[in-house]
Amino acid sequence: MGDISNMSNGLSSNGNGNGNNATMGVQRKSCWYEEEIEENLRWCFALKSILHTGASQYQDIQLLDTKPFGKALVIDGKLQSAEIDEFIYHESLVHPALLNHPNPKTIFIMGGGEGSTAREILRHWAVEKVIMCDIDEEVVDFCKSHLVVNKDAFFDPRLELVINDARAELERREEVYDVIIGDLADPIEGGPCYQLYTKSFYEFIVKPKLNQGGIFVTQMLYLIQLISLPMLTLGDGSCADELDLRIKQRIEGENRYLDGKTFSSSSTLSKAVRKSLDNETHVYTEGNARFIYGHGKQH
Amino acid sequence: MGDISNMSNGLSSNGNGNGNNATMGVQRKSCWYEEEIEENLRWCFALKSILHTGASQYQDIQLLDTKPFGKALVIDGKLQSAEIDEFIYHESLVHPALLNHPNPKTIFIMGGGEGSTAREILRHWAVEKVIMCDIDEEVVDFCKSHLVVNKDAFFDPRLELVINDARAELERREEVYDVIIGDLADPIEGGPCYQLYTKSFYEFIVKPKLNQGGIFVTQMLYLIQLISLPMLTLGDGSCADELDLRIKQRIEGENRYLDGKTFSSSSTLSKAVRKSLDNETHVYTEGNARFIYGHGKQH
Amino acid sequence: MGDISNMSNGLSSNGNGNGNNATMGVQRKSCWYEEEIEENLRWCFALKSILHTGASQYQDIQLLDTKPFGKALVIDGKLQSAEIDEFIYHESLVHPALLNHPNPKTIFIMGGGEGSTAREILRHWAVEKVIMCDIDEEVVDFCKSHLVVNKDAFFDPRLELVINDARAELERREEVYDVIIGDLADPIEGGPCYQLYTKSFYEFIVKPKLNQGGIFVTQMLYLIQLISLPMLTLGDGSCADELDLRIKQRIEGENRYLDGKTFSSSSTLSKAVRKSLDNETHVYTEGNARFIYGHGKQH
Amino acid sequence: MGDISNMSNGLSSNGNGNGNNATMGVQRKSCWYEEEIEENLRWCFALKSILHTGASQYQDIQLLDTKPFGKALVIDGKLQSAEIDEFIYHESLVHPALLNHPNPKTIFIMGGGEGSTAREILRHWAVEKVIMCDIDEEVVDFCKSHLVVNKDAFFDPRLELVINDARAELERREEVYDVIIGDLADPIEGGPCYQLYTKSFYEFIVKPKLNQGGIFVTQMLYLIQLISLPMLTLGDGSCADELDLRIKQRIEGENRYLDGKTFSSSSTLSKAVRKSLDNETHVYTEGNARFIYGHGKQH
Repeated sequence: MGDISNMSNGLSSNGNGNGNNATMGVQRKSCWYEEEIEENLRWCFALKSILHTGASQYQDIQLLDTKPFGKALVIDGKLQSAEIDEFIYHESLVHPALLNHPNPKTIFIMGGGEGSTAREILRHWAVEKVIMCDIDEEVVDFCKSHLVVNKDAFFDPRLELVINDARAELERREEVYDVIIGDLADPIEGGPCYQLYTKSFYEFIVKPKLNQGGIFVTQMLYLIQLISLPMLTLGDGSCADELDLRIKQRIEGENRYLDGKTFSSSSTLSKAVRKSLDNETHVYTEGNARFIYGHGKQH
Repeated sequence: MGDISNMSNGLSSNGNGNGNNATMGVQRKSCWYEEEIEENLRWCFALKSILHTGASQYQDIQLLDTKPFGKALVIDGKLQSAEIDEFIYHESLVHPALLNHPNPKTIFIMGGGEGSTAREILRHWAVEKVIMCDIDEEVVDFCKSHLVVNKDAFFDPRLELVINDARAELERREEVYDVIIGDLADPIEGGPCYQLYTKSFYEFIVKPKLNQGGIFVTQMLYLIQLISLPMLTLGDGSCADELDLRIKQRIEGENRYLDGKTFSSSSTLSKAVRKSLDNETHVYTEGNARFIYGHGKQH
Repeated sequence: MGDISNMSNGLSSNGNGNGNNATMGVQRKSCWYEEEIEENLRWCFALKSILHTGASQYQDIQLLDTKPFGKALVIDGKLQSAEIDEFIYHESLVHPALLNHPNPKTIFIMGGGEGSTAREILRHWAVEKVIMCDIDEEVVDFCKSHLVVNKDAFFDPRLELVINDARAELERREEVYDVIIGDLADPIEGGPCYQLYTKSFYEFIVKPKLNQGGIFVTQMLYLIQLISLPMLTLGDGSCADELDLRIKQRIEGENRYLDGKTFSSSSTLSKAVRKSLDNETHVYTEGNARFIYGHGKQH
Repeated sequence: MGDISNMSNGLSSNGNGNGNNATMGVQRKSCWYEEEIEENLRWCFALKSILHTGASQYQDIQLLDTKPFGKALVIDGKLQSAEIDEFIYHESLVHPALLNHPNPKTIFIMGGGEGSTAREILRHWAVEKVIMCDIDEEVVDFCKSHLVVNKDAFFDPRLELVINDARAELERREEVYDVIIGDLADPIEGGPCYQLYTKSFYEFIVKPKLNQGGIFVTQMLYLIQLISLPMLTLGDGSCADELDLRIKQRIEGENRYLDGKTFSSSSTLSKAVRKSLDNETHVYTEGNARFIYGHGKQH
């Protein structure tokens, strides 16, 4: 590359000054992870190293070590979670649902191959059995080896790990569950997950597999209001102390993010978001799926 | 940038075409605004155009037209506000303070040259006089010409615009105010604002200029707890209906972001943030200032 | 971008300051033009302003004011030329061909809407008539208004500007030319130009429109050897003085880049490139076009 | 990161179209090496992996595996060489100097820790002894382990590897050399090399260590004309056949880049560069060093 290095004659003279520390830092940040969140919007994280790059049958997978957020899991070009703050997402996904149930013994996780959802579930004394069903063995395998914080969860005897399509696995099994949790990648075109976000899936596959009083929870942007799934009732604004009590009684160790006040606050949406939801009429079906920006492997 | 969750609802539908529009779009997004939020973290917005680039005596200024967020004001390389969601920040800065005061007639804005803070203040029927004191005439002038949404505010007879250092202006004036609002750029090294974030400034300059029962509010990341400024009491969790009532009675037009529930939710911090604040012992003084990542013009 | 080695001589001297100017500069470079040259390779230029963004029927067009290279013309997301060094490309495209012809009176330019090729041609005393045929009136119009350096050329009475497809125009016209110059955008998929790079086009459309002893020249990466177009003979390594003489006698003003030695050097390829060309067997036809990385508007 | 992933509601619907291959590719290129060549100019290469990141006493070092150029060595944030084309730089640095000497037996390399310069030197049958003196053991060590193509050179018995400052080593040794080669990083501020580009170093340290008829060569942007170092005479334009003959007789194996024509062409500068050099009056000394854009570790 010597020839190309010679391309530029741009010499700069700094005399005998100082003050260059900041500039040096700027020079040295040469490796970056870059994601297009939307078509016209990117974020970029400085990289320490690329721990793993691979492609399973279903997805492209990367495990990166980023400077601002620690280890980060990227699937099909979309950041899934990062070491520094994944506890926020996983505590919020798991604990409200389980604490809203009087005695959650059996849990089915759709996806969740990273292991963090299982980790939070297994902190509940009541839990006796967790089925974690992820389609992608490669994701599961290298999360198992790289994510130290989830190691105990992967080896907990209450956890049963199944490699299969979550829909097929739910249909195949005859037992029902106290809580079913959808911990899935976002619905992107060509990705393996978008069919697990539809009305018919929730109504005809998920609901019949719930026990009496069972609870289904998933991360999603738009609520589907037209099916009568059990909805959380804890978050009505007066329950903060009750939630704190249940957290203390039923969960091993201490939450970092979620307590009564946090739940109350984070489940109270702003006026602008409430208005946007009130105006939402779209029901997500196989035929009219809207996709998050991005593309998966399957076409 | 406030509540980002609602920032973009930009759905794109490609119907049953050959899908190349998206691909072409990717090729064509050639102009970008890029900001280093921290040393290892950037965000990038696709640009429509660069409306204005200038340097005043105090600051570097840019007015950009961005694809994802509309017109955006950038000072000293830091995004200050964007057309699409500035209402979130400005409603949150202005209304809780004014609504917490029984009869806010006289208001002093430190900074606020963009005009949006004045706009929100002037929606209050009670307000009789607003002093807006910004150090940078160039920022004020081109916001006046470019930001259509603030035009009425700039020409409201209740507004008195002063070009001066806010500290010097407060000292110079003899009158006192019902509400003083700090709408300042972040404290970056070499920028004009960091001395307006210190304990001594609040104690010896701001506080004496407040009326009996007067309220001071500013945007900041860390609260300074060691001085006895009047603190907001509205946000105690039971006031949501009362706040909605006052909004209806005292503010012209309708808020887009802030109502009782929103305030209750956004003023209830998560466990992780509360813990971090509990552990914070740093008191911001001239001698030990911590700076937001970035650099201003003055060294 | 031609001979990049001379592109920038931008020395910066910081004298004995505290060295923060450089750091500040880093903070302030917030607007960038970014181009993917290949799938895995980008270059980025800091932007002063976006002078024009438009889309004609055929192409997406941008005129940018860049910090390192001055005004730059971008078509379909690909940099076409930049103020600071366009003379290298245009002197190299025009003068060897015209100087190799004993008396070039009539010239046909396919494309060339930017005006720089016409400018160089019109410096030849011998030239009596130039047809410049570009498909895109919008490109021509705003280059005419923005590119001061080509203004005289656009208003030279010897220039006849035609807005049409170059192929159709050549076929339509009955006269023949001393020199035909292809000054076209690269062959990208969906762009308007790739059919002007094929064997059959050169053989059946271009060649019949050349006078006895006429010369055809175009910018291209791979020579097409299978058709018997007149090839340049000036560059055989012993002609440097003869070329300098003809430049002096036949061209008005002074070249900035091209003289005898420069032509001798730049027309002598390196061993690696010669070997690669020796091994090239691909003949460019409508049916087997290879495209430069990128995408045009037409699909 | 689940919370942040939920930031955007930007759903895109592609219906049942196709044409997404290109878009997918775009999505997946998430890791990049980025270098600021000058203050307003960057290039970016997609990354396969980060093979090594380290900091020696003298320099920051990275060995990257890039998609467009293969393995690339980066020192102090500046690309030094890349697998795909380093042969161009190293053949050009070594062979003209050695072939211009009647019988080059002893060679001293200042720097060259990558090993490629030694590799090219050791292809000369005449060479009996090569001293390679690099200041940075860490660079040498990991190039030895990672750069397979230089393995034989590192273990050639004619090579003596010394870890020391090249200036100190030259002064310390009493023997003189047939050829001295400067294969150094560019002179950047705070880097270890800029004092090896000065007039006094060439005159008082290098020149006395050359045999009668000895040759000194280094990569540089500006020639220093004021000292009477032996200059190459091979490149006078008529020597191409002679050079080809010497290459055949004196070098083992075949060059990929350099032959007589290539040398003749690449040593004939363009008019613009010649003019720029004619106007150059700066003599590089310790006191008035101009630096390439960038910063090293030492301040």
